[in-house]
Amino acid sequence: MAKRNLYLNNTPIEEAKAQYLAAVKPLIQPKFETVPTAEALGRVTAAAVYARCCSPLFNAAAMDGIAVTAEKTASARETAPLTLVKNEDFRVVDTGDPIHPPYDAVIMAEDVIVLDDERVQIIASANPWQHIRPIGEDIVAGEMLLPGRHRIRPIDVGVLLSGGITEIEVLARPSVAIIPTGTEIIEPDKEPDEGDIIESNSRMFAALVSEAGGAPDRFDILPDDYELLRDTVDKAVDGHDMVIVNAGSSAGTEDFTVHVLRELGEVLVHGVAIKPGKPVILAIVRGKPVIGLPGYPVSAYIDFTEFAAPVLQLFTGISAVQSGDRARAVISKRLVSSLKHLEYVRVKVGRVGDKLVASPLARGAGAAMSLVRADGFCLIPQNSEGVEAGDQVDISLYRPLKEIENTLVAIGSHDLILDVLADIMPNRFPGCFLSSTHVGSMGGLMALGRGEAHLAPTHLLDEDTGVYNVSYLQRLFPNEKMALIKGVNRIQGFIVKPGNPLNITSVSDLTRCRYVNRQRGAGTRVLLDYLMKKQGIAPEEINGYEREAATHMAVAAAVNSDSADCGMGIMSAARALNLDFVEVGPEEYDFAIPVRFLDLPLTQHFLELLRSDEFHQRLAELGGYGWDRCGEIVYI
Amino acid sequence: MAKRNLYLNNTPIEEAKAQYLAAVKPLIQPKFETVPTAEALGRVTAAAVYARCCSPLFNAAAMDGIAVTAEKTASARETAPLTLVKNEDFRVVDTGDPIHPPYDAVIMAEDVIVLDDERVQIIASANPWQHIRPIGEDIVAGEMLLPGRHRIRPIDVGVLLSGGITEIEVLARPSVAIIPTGTEIIEPDKEPDEGDIIESNSRMFAALVSEAGGAPDRFDILPDDYELLRDTVDKAVDGHDMVIVNAGSSAGTEDFTVHVLRELGEVLVHGVAIKPGKPVILAIVRGKPVIGLPGYPVSAYIDFTEFAAPVLQLFTGISAVQSGDRARAVISKRLVSSLKHLEYVRVKVGRVGDKLVASPLARGAGAAMSLVRADGFCLIPQNSEGVEAGDQVDISLYRPLKEIENTLVAIGSHDLILDVLADIMPNRFPGCFLSSTHVGSMGGLMALGRGEAHLAPTHLLDEDTGVYNVSYLQRLFPNEKMALIKGVNRIQGFIVKPGNPLNITSVSDLTRCRYVNRQRGAGTRVLLDYLMKKQGIAPEEINGYEREAATHMAVAAAVNSDSADCGMGIMSAARALNLDFVEVGPEEYDFAIPVRFLDLPLTQHFLELLRSDEFHQRLAELGGYGWDRCGEIVYI
Repeated sequence: MAKRNLYLNNTPIEEAKAQYLAAVKPLIQPKFETVPTAEALGRVTAAAVYARCCSPLFNAAAMDGIAVTAEKTASARETAPLTLVKNEDFRVVDTGDPIHPPYDAVIMAEDVIVLDDERVQIIASANPWQHIRPIGEDIVAGEMLLPGRHRIRPIDVGVLLSGGITEIEVLARPSVAIIPTGTEIIEPDKEPDEGDIIESNSRMFAALVSEAGGAPDRFDILPDDYELLRDTVDKAVDGHDMVIVNAGSSAGTEDFTVHVLRELGEVLVHGVAIKPGKPVILAIVRGKPVIGLPGYPVSAYIDFTEFAAPVLQLFTGISAVQSGDRARAVISKRLVSSLKHLEYVRVKVGRVGDKLVASPLARGAGAAMSLVRADGFCLIPQNSEGVEAGDQVDISLYRPLKEIENTLVAIGSHDLILDVLADIMPNRFPGCFLSSTHVGSMGGLMALGRGEAHLAPTHLLDEDTGVYNVSYLQRLFPNEKMALIKGVNRIQGFIVKPGNPLNITSVSDLTRCRYVNRQRGAGTRVLLDYLMKKQGIAPEEINGYEREAATHMAVAAAVNSDSADCGMGIMSAARALNLDFVEVGPEEYDFAIPVRFLDLPLTQHFLELLRSDEFHQRLAELGGYGWDRCGEIVYI
Repeated sequence: MAKRNLYLNNTPIEEAKAQYLAAVKPLIQPKFETVPTAEALGRVTAAAVYARCCSPLFNAAAMDGIAVTAEKTASARETAPLTLVKNEDFRVVDTGDPIHPPYDAVIMAEDVIVLDDERVQIIASANPWQHIRPIGEDIVAGEMLLPGRHRIRPIDVGVLLSGGITEIEVLARPSVAIIPTGTEIIEPDKEPDEGDIIESNSRMFAALVSEAGGAPDRFDILPDDYELLRDTVDKAVDGHDMVIVNAGSSAGTEDFTVHVLRELGEVLVHGVAIKPGKPVILAIVRGKPVIGLPGYPVSAYIDFTEFAAPVLQLFTGISAVQSGDRARAVISKRLVSSLKHLEYVRVKVGRVGDKLVASPLARGAGAAMSLVRADGFCLIPQNSEGVEAGDQVDISLYRPLKEIENTLVAIGSHDLILDVLADIMPNRFPGCFLSSTHVGSMGGLMALGRGEAHLAPTHLLDEDTGVYNVSYLQRLFPNEKMALIKGVNRIQGFIVKPGNPLNITSVSDLTRCRYVNRQRGAGTRVLLDYLMKKQGIAPEEINGYEREAATHMAVAAAVNSDSADCGMGIMSAARALNLDFVEVGPEEYDFAIPVRFLDLPLTQHFLELLRSDEFHQRLAELGGYGWDRCGEIVYI
């Protein structure tokens, strides 16, 4: 076997962070630059800013009316009106007009009786300085307008200009070199060959750096070559405030990064007790922070947030990542975690009844979509073995809690139409959302039973009666009034390679191919089992019966990549990958729902979507669906 | 009197908004553009985005180790190790390497015994597909990556590229013409003459438009000229998606905007029942929304948020303004409001003990600094006469609640050193803040008594003993253990014009000048009253004794603008405006604090600041301060 860097450390995250930031902090000298105030939105003040002039700049009329000299109006009474002569006793003023001596008060237009073009009458005296906005009422020259290290907002731009500040000293954006490495990675616009990985992390880092107030400088992809990497990092350190190398941060045969950083500078930490995200490198090269981030996108994202963002914050003086809402939620599924590390678990969050429920998403370091789909994350501490279903956990939210509370939660069987419905919902009903988690039909009904979802998409065939869904609800919910919202008829069948080269036409043909199955509890697997039983075929007879894929699309992908010859699934999944499809027959894909949720506004919106022409049009485009009874309610 | 547009309406705000949005909505056709994914951060998807390729693109090793054919390993046992030959029975793989047939499983490096360069031994069989990341595990081609109308985040950029999406269709930024008008307004870089107003609103609008996802196009300032305004708006409508005219939206003699918009199109609303912000114009010109915003900056800001932002949201499909935290707080001061309108009251918010306290800021439409200083606002509904001190109100927060909870709340006498301390605090103690509200010494002690502040800056002279502060605390807090944190000795005196032309040297000289006084309850006023009493001078003898300014700086500004000859105040205020200063004598400016707050971490930080060299250095720069006992604690 080739030589590997087997010796990754397992430093606790807080310790690693504290050690690194303590070492980096004294090295960082914030840089400043002067920008026009009008272009300073979002920038951060270098120091407190003091007004150069007053606002208003002069004593100004606060009302439309006439300017007078207060002491000359003293005799005016209702019983003894006083007549004033224009430009002698008074001047007509609009709001904002300057008030000069001898005038020292304004009388509102409504309180003035116009006699003719030259003369007016008043019936009450004026107090000195009434209805006058004194100079400096809003801003006094010399007054502090903004404190130092303040992120400039739109209102601040206005106030700075009013205070005579046309240019402002702000923190310069730290320049961050981002160096993607790896012989196997390619630019996204290249056509990939077998074994190629599309380079996407560097663009994600660039976006994260921008959001945190830095200036990203993305380098071209470097192949895995020790000298080339060393020379590139060496030059990058000179020209930038900070360097990010991605990846080669682990301990594989071609993971050079740690060796390069040891040669050029000092590696303070290699490997932290965090999952995903263990293989991170925290180094300093000639007084500059250099961070090696792992290649898996979720690891890369978490390590950026944990280590690169706080370093950026030392330059920018502001919190890099907007901290969102926090909430306490019930975890819907047992989570076993290792004692060895802190684990970030991405979750979907929903409000069901009076419970806030967090459902864990895919936990793999490569599951970038779990970050896209997540509403937040919870932390399973180092030294904890995990949490049990039903335990309370703290969630850091990526979305506002308000949005989450306005989300209809579907947990159950997977179908592409759930994506379509989730896409239409907020367009048709702004501020309302549909979230779906895919755990199979039985899994969904279980979640419904535990009060973790509003509805469960399900397609479970009763082997005795041939009727879908109804008997399952009767059996599983003896104490709750349930309904089925009819969904779609969809065609199940065998997903096979183009041209169906193995000529698979029925269940009995599965014994002579490499099959990919769905997970236990999936309606599609129940259907297969039913068909196998009818034909008298045992699981052992099918090569791949034990191989489980979690969605229709995953089945189609396995066939498409030739790691299987056939799998059962829906027509739209086959179509999406240009595969062939052998119809087995239609099935009923419905939504189980407790009757008490039927009246929720979100449910009513959902019903309206199901019945809409827009949705039926999208079904027609997908193919393989019927929608005759879509949106009908069947009480069980 | 000149002709005025006296007939502003008073449409309730929700009605005005609903009416206008209903009219504008059908006119708005979102426009799309295609941008490179790498530059799409913050943009909004035009429609749902589906993956073009799978990720991973192939079946890949999930571990470092060897790829094997599972069925050929079936016989391996601890008691019967199986020897495998390189490139025949196995291949060495690193994480991420592709796995090709005939290999269909990976055995971890740790479980492999290396015999020599060509042969390894295993002691357990492999299951098919173990430690293999199947093609499409993260993303399956055809799967929905992002829904429509989704604001693209850094993680989304990564996932889009991984899914083969290198370009993406997004909503085009709506172009918004911003037309500043007014003969009296000048560009911020011009030297202002008497009567000039620095134009700052248009830059604030530009920043607000940018934040809301629009593209601002700021026009040059137009003088008040009917034809010129009409022609400019006419052209702007053709070239932009939306037009903002500022100001001339009220009913003054030179407020042309409403007439222009009536000539060019339709004015749906002129005047809403909101304060500040009444004189807004909501119009449609040739199918484009045109909004006339008022000139006062607070009115302009509120009306932008209420009317222009929701229109922008129709273009962008996303919430224009990030809605912040909401909280319930006790209002610290009676607020009388008119039945005629909804009122936005800006407040400072602090956590004192177990109470969240909201202190109202300046309510005028011109008080832009009230928006800068505000932590949030509360709404006093139309048809409400206001709220009483101690009532609960709902606050919409501009700052995160977490920040507010980490803020030391000072209410009381004003001094420039409070700004300095507020500036140093978050720099020295990141995440910690000091807020100060200026209500005079007595007002501060009252607030302390009601539990609305942690500490009260105070400088109250006991006329009988000549001792500062102590006797007031003894008298006002009979039931609470109190302490004084010693602050600074500061020199009080007369702020006069340069050269002291009226030769003011003592209190008796005030009878022959125009004076500007401080408000009742201010320590400076108590000092003046004490000096007047000693000299036997009655208030009626001083011209301007009744004229009140709220801060030292406001006093200095009044003298500087020649609306007064003299006022009493501190040396630093005179210095800030280059005025002369006649010393009266030093006084003790301290911080009253209940003993129970002394142990708070925030108080400890505050004490550290008071004792720091950095603070003393800043005092020396300001001038007129002594800090011998600064930070000492005196128990009362």
